[in-house]
Amino acid sequence: MRRREFTWLTGTALAGMAVPPPLRGMARPRPADLRVNGERLNRWLAELTPMGANAAGGQDRVAFSDADLEGRAWVADLMRAAGLEVEVDLAGNLWGRIAGSEPGLLPLVLGSHIDSVPNGGNYDGTLGSLAAVEIATTLKEAGVTPRHSLHVVVFTNEEGGKTGSRILAGAMDPAELELVTASGFTIAEGLRRVGGDPTKMKEARMEPGALAGYLELHIEQGAVLDNQDVDIGVVQGIVGIMRWNVTVEGVTNHAGTTPMKDRRDALVAAARFVDMVYTTVAGWPGSQVATVGRIQAEPGAPNVIPGKATLSLEIRDLSMAKIEEVFRQLASRAEALGQEAGARFTFERFYVSEAAPTAPEIQDLVENAAATLGLSSMRMPSGAGHDAQSMAHVCPMGMIFVPSVKGISHAPEEYTAPADNTRGADVLLQTFLALDQR
Amino acid sequence: MRRREFTWLTGTALAGMAVPPPLRGMARPRPADLRVNGERLNRWLAELTPMGANAAGGQDRVAFSDADLEGRAWVADLMRAAGLEVEVDLAGNLWGRIAGSEPGLLPLVLGSHIDSVPNGGNYDGTLGSLAAVEIATTLKEAGVTPRHSLHVVVFTNEEGGKTGSRILAGAMDPAELELVTASGFTIAEGLRRVGGDPTKMKEARMEPGALAGYLELHIEQGAVLDNQDVDIGVVQGIVGIMRWNVTVEGVTNHAGTTPMKDRRDALVAAARFVDMVYTTVAGWPGSQVATVGRIQAEPGAPNVIPGKATLSLEIRDLSMAKIEEVFRQLASRAEALGQEAGARFTFERFYVSEAAPTAPEIQDLVENAAATLGLSSMRMPSGAGHDAQSMAHVCPMGMIFVPSVKGISHAPEEYTAPADNTRGADVLLQTFLALDQR
Repeated sequence: MRRREFTWLTGTALAGMAVPPPLRGMARPRPADLRVNGERLNRWLAELTPMGANAAGGQDRVAFSDADLEGRAWVADLMRAAGLEVEVDLAGNLWGRIAGSEPGLLPLVLGSHIDSVPNGGNYDGTLGSLAAVEIATTLKEAGVTPRHSLHVVVFTNEEGGKTGSRILAGAMDPAELELVTASGFTIAEGLRRVGGDPTKMKEARMEPGALAGYLELHIEQGAVLDNQDVDIGVVQGIVGIMRWNVTVEGVTNHAGTTPMKDRRDALVAAARFVDMVYTTVAGWPGSQVATVGRIQAEPGAPNVIPGKATLSLEIRDLSMAKIEEVFRQLASRAEALGQEAGARFTFERFYVSEAAPTAPEIQDLVENAAATLGLSSMRMPSGAGHDAQSMAHVCPMGMIFVPSVKGISHAPEEYTAPADNTRGADVLLQTFLALDQR
Repeated sequence: MRRREFTWLTGTALAGMAVPPPLRGMARPRPADLRVNGERLNRWLAELTPMGANAAGGQDRVAFSDADLEGRAWVADLMRAAGLEVEVDLAGNLWGRIAGSEPGLLPLVLGSHIDSVPNGGNYDGTLGSLAAVEIATTLKEAGVTPRHSLHVVVFTNEEGGKTGSRILAGAMDPAELELVTASGFTIAEGLRRVGGDPTKMKEARMEPGALAGYLELHIEQGAVLDNQDVDIGVVQGIVGIMRWNVTVEGVTNHAGTTPMKDRRDALVAAARFVDMVYTTVAGWPGSQVATVGRIQAEPGAPNVIPGKATLSLEIRDLSMAKIEEVFRQLASRAEALGQEAGARFTFERFYVSEAAPTAPEIQDLVENAAATLGLSSMRMPSGAGHDAQSMAHVCPMGMIFVPSVKGISHAPEEYTAPADNTRGADVLLQTFLALDQR
């Protein structure tokens, strides 16, 4: 039985499995039998959509915009209805908190973000945020009080630089406060708009060890789960990223008067490099990826042999050491290509983002939760960045992925089926409950 | 004996061979024994240099600039000193004419241009222009009157679009008159500045068959003669040019979340195309050349797999049919590359410049003249455009190339050795005299 064929059928079935409010006189359900209300979760996703919807069918709920403020206020109302105590922290993050049954334990945090990229989709961030509120609501309805305090968080300005979570992690450069965001406001202005205080970034910081754990449900934003018909991605970590500017120097010459064999065409050497990067990295086992996304030939006229070409090279992997090893091999092959074409390659690294592995014990809990729910799962890296990456500085963290249809994200066509949203939320719930017992 | 080793020695020797003014009582030299005054020709080249010289050591004698006007006035004086009757035609070209001994014959024309590109060199155009004046001077000093009238021409605005010669050929679009040139003047304003009349382009036109022939001496602007130590290039024609915009369409995707094997990277397909174009065209016999000078990936960010790439493709050859055949083969291979990479190639031709073959009988005369003078020669295409290309519409034409050191042109480093300038002028003189006898 292939997953995709039964998406809607099982979706309906799962929604039907949602636990109704506890009836008078009935025994409380065992935590392992708890299920979220999938119909409600998907309705909430639909209700949030008009806040920032644009004419193209996409979301313009960019951080700090009026639509973002409207969405946050609406989520705060849902939090209150779930019995959570609502607060905005100094970093502008929206929190809903309820105390656990054992006051000595550190809080467990569930969350994500609700801001979108310009003309983004309906699921990126919102699924994890609303699923966290749904879990609080489910627990309240079931009369279940977890041992740890449950904190639900909606981080601020994830899409514009993970501002809220990075302030908590103590990882934000104060200079970023002056950056103008897609809303038109600077980050400092935006933080004030949502109730934060840009002058108190140090006070906003959470010390490492301040939380018992952080869990985030998110759409995959890639097509791996969709292509392989797998329900749940057990995230191994958020990949590290390194980027280089690559310069290829040959000799500029007249495209009419220079015979082919006398050329030292920088673009021909650069082109061979692009092909080599793809072919080499695709040919190796492992989940590393390498991309050339930008290229320019100089002087850049149809009738001039390019004397110079500049490219970007990006490599991502869960292991920083692996990234460096991949780079060494590509640079070595580039040198050989350059010698053959009479061109010279130089590499200047301009960006490093450290990999953030998820806690192995949480990976196991996510995998067990999926299995218990009868869902297929696979371990995979997150190629994209998430607030969970920041939270890894504070506490053990884990992430759960659900399929993105065709892998499309950051676009109006972004789509995850209602049944998958519900499945993801149930895995989040069961993982939370398992973590709560530890 | 390699040419280069003896450049200076034979240059000095040749300059010494220049025929002195005829002495009273001496017999006139036989035409085959006539030689230009190489010392004078090279002095003239040096004297023209300050008119438009810039601080970088290059030439800014762009068409219609004050420096261009100064240079033209100076050349007109040289023409008058050579006994030529000076006139500027409606197309702004500077002519110096002397009648031949047989009034029924059509004129033979020698010439080139003296305008430069911005920050250009000292030899492009000026060598052919001053060599033509030198030949008129040599003939006058030797008391030799050719059968055909000799017309020396300095074409206007060669570098900005071969304006003067293309008006004569009836090949200029009147819309070009409004183009702003490097001088800051439009072509119409510039034509008025040099004494032409932009409202009379039709009247300026020369009918096909109006001249007996056109000869142009020019620096090669490529490195073929210099690399192969050959004295004289017998130009087979000016190559035709076709240019295409190439669009490669794949699928834009997230560079972190899309595994290598699931990518349809337009830039990888484009890169393989660039390599294939070079490798294929360089691997065939013949002098065809193909160049990708411009490339862009979209959206063009280091962290996005390009969904689209756009490139330029240029192919040049003496045969338009060969250009089309080369294109067909490249397009067919591109289709295969596209299928392999999941990308689609489309080609839009946006530029065609017809090839202009030189007259085969003039090629033979140039080759004979070089051999008679003890110079090595080779047949070769001109990869660059020249006024001779326009004149091919009016009469049989021929071109003579001399070596450009390292092939550098359109730059301050452009250089042709004095001995080579003299050799080229002697070949031009002997070719003219041979043509005059036919």
